[in-house]
Amino acid sequence: MKKTSTRLADGRELIYYDSRDDAVRDAYDRRPLDPVSTASEIRHDRLLGDSVAIASHRQGRTYHPPADECPLCPSRDGRLSEIPAPDYDVAVFENRFPSLAGDSGRCEVVCFTSDHDASFADLTEEQAALVLEAWTDRTAELSQLPDVEQVFCFENRGAEIGVTLGHPHGQIYGYPFVTPRTERMLASLAAHREATGGRNLFDDVLADETADGRRVVLEGEHWTAFVPYAAHWPYEVHLYPKRRVPDLLALEQAARTEFPQIYLEVLRRFDRIFGAGESGKAGEGDSSQGRTGAARTPYIAAWHQAPVRAADRTGFALHLELFTIRRTSGKLKFLAGSESGMNVFINDVPPEAAAERLREVASE
Amino acid sequence: MKKTSTRLADGRELIYYDSRDDAVRDAYDRRPLDPVSTASEIRHDRLLGDSVAIASHRQGRTYHPPADECPLCPSRDGRLSEIPAPDYDVAVFENRFPSLAGDSGRCEVVCFTSDHDASFADLTEEQAALVLEAWTDRTAELSQLPDVEQVFCFENRGAEIGVTLGHPHGQIYGYPFVTPRTERMLASLAAHREATGGRNLFDDVLADETADGRRVVLEGEHWTAFVPYAAHWPYEVHLYPKRRVPDLLALEQAARTEFPQIYLEVLRRFDRIFGAGESGKAGEGDSSQGRTGAARTPYIAAWHQAPVRAADRTGFALHLELFTIRRTSGKLKFLAGSESGMNVFINDVPPEAAAERLREVASE
Repeated sequence: MKKTSTRLADGRELIYYDSRDDAVRDAYDRRPLDPVSTASEIRHDRLLGDSVAIASHRQGRTYHPPADECPLCPSRDGRLSEIPAPDYDVAVFENRFPSLAGDSGRCEVVCFTSDHDASFADLTEEQAALVLEAWTDRTAELSQLPDVEQVFCFENRGAEIGVTLGHPHGQIYGYPFVTPRTERMLASLAAHREATGGRNLFDDVLADETADGRRVVLEGEHWTAFVPYAAHWPYEVHLYPKRRVPDLLALEQAARTEFPQIYLEVLRRFDRIFGAGESGKAGEGDSSQGRTGAARTPYIAAWHQAPVRAADRTGFALHLELFTIRRTSGKLKFLAGSESGMNVFINDVPPEAAAERLREVASE
Repeated sequence: MKKTSTRLADGRELIYYDSRDDAVRDAYDRRPLDPVSTASEIRHDRLLGDSVAIASHRQGRTYHPPADECPLCPSRDGRLSEIPAPDYDVAVFENRFPSLAGDSGRCEVVCFTSDHDASFADLTEEQAALVLEAWTDRTAELSQLPDVEQVFCFENRGAEIGVTLGHPHGQIYGYPFVTPRTERMLASLAAHREATGGRNLFDDVLADETADGRRVVLEGEHWTAFVPYAAHWPYEVHLYPKRRVPDLLALEQAARTEFPQIYLEVLRRFDRIFGAGESGKAGEGDSSQGRTGAARTPYIAAWHQAPVRAADRTGFALHLELFTIRRTSGKLKFLAGSESGMNVFINDVPPEAAAERLREVASE
């Protein structure tokens, strides 16, 4: 793997991750870009106790451009994009329309491949391994920034989930605080340790799910994928390394090597949940159908890592949460009154049924 | 106001609220309905500490029926709906596809008017006052149920928010637990009281917003509407009675009398935020356009009330939170990776700008 760091015309950082050690990335950004002016502001909600990022400059961001104006494709045939090189393996750059910026954190875009029409599930294991390297490296780099308390690597996929660029990509947020969801997990972790005389809640949840088995979707040598007992979303899979580590940096080589195979299989099963009957129905944006004509399941994939400076970060368990808002063919789960108003999720798909479906659609 | 309680063919409760004291509601349900069998189950998430309602029977619920098959219209012209009477003012019935049922709580549907094409904003002040009576009465009734710990009256409006029935209606959930959002408010309330030697956080927030004034949208004699300092949604308004009460039952007569005028004005402003240019663009379901041809803003309106049996329920402040997921003409706010994965909201509309817009579009 070779890493090449450079700068875009407006000063933003761009990093290439290449599988070939002899890759040369010397193209420079020839666009006449104005300096980025961002106005992110973090505001605290006194009643809810959480923080909101107010990012007014984002209203003008690129919105469903035609494929031939994609800012995430390489620069070629006279067209200049965010990536000056005529091709790339994996490229990461600072978001031009960041939700978090300056002393309010950092936002990066991760381009998984230069192939505009691909999806993460289309990547080879080698390509997926390179993305894992990029996530790991970015976690290391962003953890060094004084204003970043938590690094969040994630992918939003599908126009149904609000994705405005069809090109396969994910994002990395460096939050200037520990997020409410992670704070809650840390609180549960501490309460469980207290109540059980030192047991680790993540270990116990994984052991219990494995022993029960009804919700296990896939088990490798180093990873276990299961639908959680109290799943919030119609189809939701949590992917844990069997040996607990706090973050991507601490992931052992054997788990790192096996990850692409396991994750690609889970993603491909996600695309098969709703069956071929879905095909041709879409009309939900150019990214809703794969190149095979099969419908793509919209999803969010979220890496949970220990906060950078949390006191008991070693007790935290790195894991990936993957879920879709699609509840059945052609129908989406909306976060309406109960979810958005009271934070109570209603899930119409029993977790055991979701796991069964995800086992049914296994490859081969 | 006259209240008439009856039962539907499958045993569910139906209650009419009429403005005329001499209304006669003696029509009976002539449909051959099977008894309702629900399988709601509340599951606890050990890591997040919250509860999820698993409600698999809801997958088969009525989904965008044509207007002439609307189950919320009165029964007439030979067509039988959920409401046997040939007309009604306000009608409330137990949901046939409840998210919560049995010892897991209760779900009711509130039909605001028999007029299929109306919206809450189209109601007269008299009609809105009757809905307020119904919300208040249902809060009293559901608070008596042994399995209900919190009563939540709300309205989801618009296909963009997942509403599957265009007829103007809201819902009431009787939760068998205190919701996470309310628990957090109660925790902030207690912490503030502790930190300030007894001050009430709700009172302080309202006093601070009123004194600052930049985010105040509308002030009546008994109510104040403002965009909160750390608004989570593009356009969000919180409506508080000036004199704090824990729930609708405790609302004073003067505030009760003024409510329809204030709330209808706020709702009508919501429909004007995005301008007339929106009209004719929709294609987002039959409920996205009002009868004037103007676009309807999708919204969630949520009444926050003190839990039924909370120890310090008198410190809680009844208020209504109204917000839209529309962030600009034709563009929606999605809850993607940051919101759904980490519970961190990104808001592209500064609260001061939202408040200014909501003052600009005042009536007259």
